[in-house]
Amino acid sequence: MTPTLVRTIAELRRLVAAARVRGASIGLVPTMGALHRGHAALMRRAREETGLVVVSIFVNPTQFGPHEDLARYPRMLEQDCELCGRERVDVVFAPPVEEMYPAGFRTFVEVEGLQNVLCGASRPGHFRGVCTVVLKLFNQVQPERAYFGQKDAQQARILQQMVRDLDVPVEMCICPTVREPDGLALSSRNQYLDAGQRQHALSLYQTLQHAQHQIAGGERSAAVIRQRMEERLVATPGAVVDYAAVVDADSLQPLASLRGRVLLALAVKFGATRLIDNALVDVPE
Amino acid sequence: MTPTLVRTIAELRRLVAAARVRGASIGLVPTMGALHRGHAALMRRAREETGLVVVSIFVNPTQFGPHEDLARYPRMLEQDCELCGRERVDVVFAPPVEEMYPAGFRTFVEVEGLQNVLCGASRPGHFRGVCTVVLKLFNQVQPERAYFGQKDAQQARILQQMVRDLDVPVEMCICPTVREPDGLALSSRNQYLDAGQRQHALSLYQTLQHAQHQIAGGERSAAVIRQRMEERLVATPGAVVDYAAVVDADSLQPLASLRGRVLLALAVKFGATRLIDNALVDVPE
Repeated sequence: MTPTLVRTIAELRRLVAAARVRGASIGLVPTMGALHRGHAALMRRAREETGLVVVSIFVNPTQFGPHEDLARYPRMLEQDCELCGRERVDVVFAPPVEEMYPAGFRTFVEVEGLQNVLCGASRPGHFRGVCTVVLKLFNQVQPERAYFGQKDAQQARILQQMVRDLDVPVEMCICPTVREPDGLALSSRNQYLDAGQRQHALSLYQTLQHAQHQIAGGERSAAVIRQRMEERLVATPGAVVDYAAVVDADSLQPLASLRGRVLLALAVKFGATRLIDNALVDVPE
Repeated sequence: MTPTLVRTIAELRRLVAAARVRGASIGLVPTMGALHRGHAALMRRAREETGLVVVSIFVNPTQFGPHEDLARYPRMLEQDCELCGRERVDVVFAPPVEEMYPAGFRTFVEVEGLQNVLCGASRPGHFRGVCTVVLKLFNQVQPERAYFGQKDAQQARILQQMVRDLDVPVEMCICPTVREPDGLALSSRNQYLDAGQRQHALSLYQTLQHAQHQIAGGERSAAVIRQRMEERLVATPGAVVDYAAVVDADSLQPLASLRGRVLLALAVKFGATRLIDNALVDVPE
């Protein structure tokens, strides 16, 4: 089945309204394209849970900084549509930039306090762009459910807060990170890596695994965990560490001692390619 | 008919959903209460155009500055509900502050460029608070149409921009300013005025009338119009001028020569009471 490819908000609204008249619930999977098995897992869950599955493919300029990879970010709409077809997606919404940001656009959404830590610290304005485009997509599609990956842990946390604070009538479904057989988290940016970098990139997953073992073994000092994670990453050939963080999963603020739901989060650059990964750990009191 | 008084978002959503099942369209009139004939005009239009009329009454703390009149802003829910009943409103939504802003609230909406001029210049954060609460109300009620007064010209312009930029599926209905027989624009804050101030407050309307006559007579210099408006206001006993502005109605930026749709806007303090008024003028090219 080939999904219907839609370029305009008006056409998107017509298709969604027609589905709603038929009694279908709507599932939205927002993406920037360059789709992989991680995205496919989101689509599969949307397919199971909703009647009309919409995948948006939009490389959102407002979430890229001036020196980031907006221009080289992979764009492969034809392949993406094929993957969506295999996952029985109904609608692919791939608007041009001027459809999403017409001349005179000037409204932004910010989630304060959560957006300037972790990835937000090295990517100022990133989550403001993410929140703004996701809220636009929510208003365009008005889905019952929206699907995001846990791989982008901070994004998931911020969007959940936005939905709660602004009373957006959508159920947020955060789905587990999908990994390569060796553990590397799937990412559209993995294709930037050369063979050596690809091998060393495994260090992120291994570092998270090691930290989880330390915690399972009784370690409760966030400083010890954090330092050990950083040491492992720094020792990885070609890796430049952006952050290795041990934070409260709700507030995203650094912890002293581990308790409750803890987020272990890493960001590492290999050459110009920035990779992230994370693990959520429930620490017994 | 007595409107149903609702205090929680959950109950509001239930009533709206039930009306939607009956096939009713929803009209929303957001207010801060202390309702007057200006609000009644909005309700009347909503009653004509939609099947379920919801009036929200919420003195929104995030749109008040630290030294503004949040504490003394008039609250008179019983009288307000009576007025709503006379206008055949279906639902009055009057949530407590903690229902709208629960602990941990941290998401805000901003319309850049339009919010720091005119009233925004002397009320930093005001329109950010307005946008945030109105977007929340839109998400809570999901109305087909929402009704606002032209008296708050900058608010109307900013909210229209927010709706456009964020693709909010609501039709914005901006209704003409309702005035006392002598021309004073109705405002919940008029009740702060003593008899002398009430008399002198008429100066705002008269100043706008005079400026419109000047323009009708051929004057095209914004500086001349602006200066004459300011002179008239400054000469008014007890009046402290916040601004007298001649701006483009779309950009809200100052004009040199008058052309297109022009907004004449005034803000004046009488004692602690800040009054605003405005006129839209279409200037022939």
